[in-house]
Amino acid sequence: MLTLSLIGIGCGDPAQLTRAAIGTINAADLVLIPRKGIAKSDLADLRRTICADVLTSDKTRIAEFDLPVRDAAEADYRKGVDDWHDAVAATWSQTIADHLGSDGRIALLIWGDPSLYDSSLRIARRLDPLPDIEVVPGITSIQALCAAHALPLNDIGEPFLVTTGRRLLEGGWPQGVDTVVVMLDGGTAFQSLDPEGLHIWWGAYLGMPDQIIMSGALAEAGARIVAARQDARARHGWIMDSYILKRRP
Amino acid sequence: MLTLSLIGIGCGDPAQLTRAAIGTINAADLVLIPRKGIAKSDLADLRRTICADVLTSDKTRIAEFDLPVRDAAEADYRKGVDDWHDAVAATWSQTIADHLGSDGRIALLIWGDPSLYDSSLRIARRLDPLPDIEVVPGITSIQALCAAHALPLNDIGEPFLVTTGRRLLEGGWPQGVDTVVVMLDGGTAFQSLDPEGLHIWWGAYLGMPDQIIMSGALAEAGARIVAARQDARARHGWIMDSYILKRRP
Repeated sequence: MLTLSLIGIGCGDPAQLTRAAIGTINAADLVLIPRKGIAKSDLADLRRTICADVLTSDKTRIAEFDLPVRDAAEADYRKGVDDWHDAVAATWSQTIADHLGSDGRIALLIWGDPSLYDSSLRIARRLDPLPDIEVVPGITSIQALCAAHALPLNDIGEPFLVTTGRRLLEGGWPQGVDTVVVMLDGGTAFQSLDPEGLHIWWGAYLGMPDQIIMSGALAEAGARIVAARQDARARHGWIMDSYILKRRP
Repeated sequence: MLTLSLIGIGCGDPAQLTRAAIGTINAADLVLIPRKGIAKSDLADLRRTICADVLTSDKTRIAEFDLPVRDAAEADYRKGVDDWHDAVAATWSQTIADHLGSDGRIALLIWGDPSLYDSSLRIARRLDPLPDIEVVPGITSIQALCAAHALPLNDIGEPFLVTTGRRLLEGGWPQGVDTVVVMLDGGTAFQSLDPEGLHIWWGAYLGMPDQIIMSGALAEAGARIVAARQDARARHGWIMDSYILKRRP
């Protein structure tokens, strides 16, 4: 029997690792490390660094492998993602078969938390043979963002929406909420909103040594953030950021 | 100078502690432990257990203190909460003055994550003298719920809403989302919804030895959950639960 543990490792700071994450990495017979991750540069080595840092068991092997590339030419976005998940699952299955066979514990280190804007759970359900699947939660960039700003996410007894940059661009301010968390924004979708009454708490490279945070009334802070983001992106060659918007009467 | 660290400790499982949480507890001169916490019985000792478990520094002192009780007779809910936060802040300030004086590091262990449905950040800003405030994120019950069900919280590229039982009761299914996380539901607000097309993933005592999870089509699973919840509550004398609802076309 195979067991696959999807282990949330937090968003960059190895101090965000939980004891459960460290224990589960050490209980694994095989740790899978995809060579191409979320970003190519600074992030690529984090999984390797974490393994080197926390592994105390010498029975744990590490297998690096190349991820297939998504077909950007596929016009149907859903089908493109679906095909890509199939291809990734086939790569995982092959790597497991090559390095472990049909019996043992496998660990996969997931940026943030495996439940939040991550497809590993969906891909894992396509593995052949299908392993038992176990999830170890990890600190998300939303939590790192709130912590960096010492910001309560929700107002007392109030709801909040977590959405994407694309949704915010397309739909404007969502109905029924005064707090919105924006993830996966490749740009600065907040610029499409009327800034009147809105406040923003923004962060990039959260949890990492290069973490930047900025906040303020959107009307004033928006332009500062756009400039800082552009500058940081040019300097690093990549950027990963998220932000919280609140409407204040 | 005083520094106050609000440290998320996860929702019951000491294995959810991060390395940052453990390090910050050990760096503290004083750990504040309120004697009356979220629930009176099984939960009350968790903070004490965690301190005993992770503290390796003998310079760290522990101060237990009684929290003031909120005036339930106050008709204005906001004012009741506001007065109570003032009273709690006064108690924290007094306990700090008595045990530490005006210089040192204070740690407060927070259920889940200090940013999510927790008022410690708001209370901390009312302390006199005002300390530097630092937040260490912790695993939330939402994450423990997703992990227990091995459930991706969001659908691919889709938003989700986090709300309360009261909001769901008052407002019905929220507009613009197909995934809703319900927190702080003292009852079973999901029963107020038309169950057609809805699925539920429910969990109680998440992360604790007595964790219970159930899921299914709401039309079928709803009644099972209501019965299991009633039974568990009677057995334990208290319950803390949350759930995720998804609308499937």
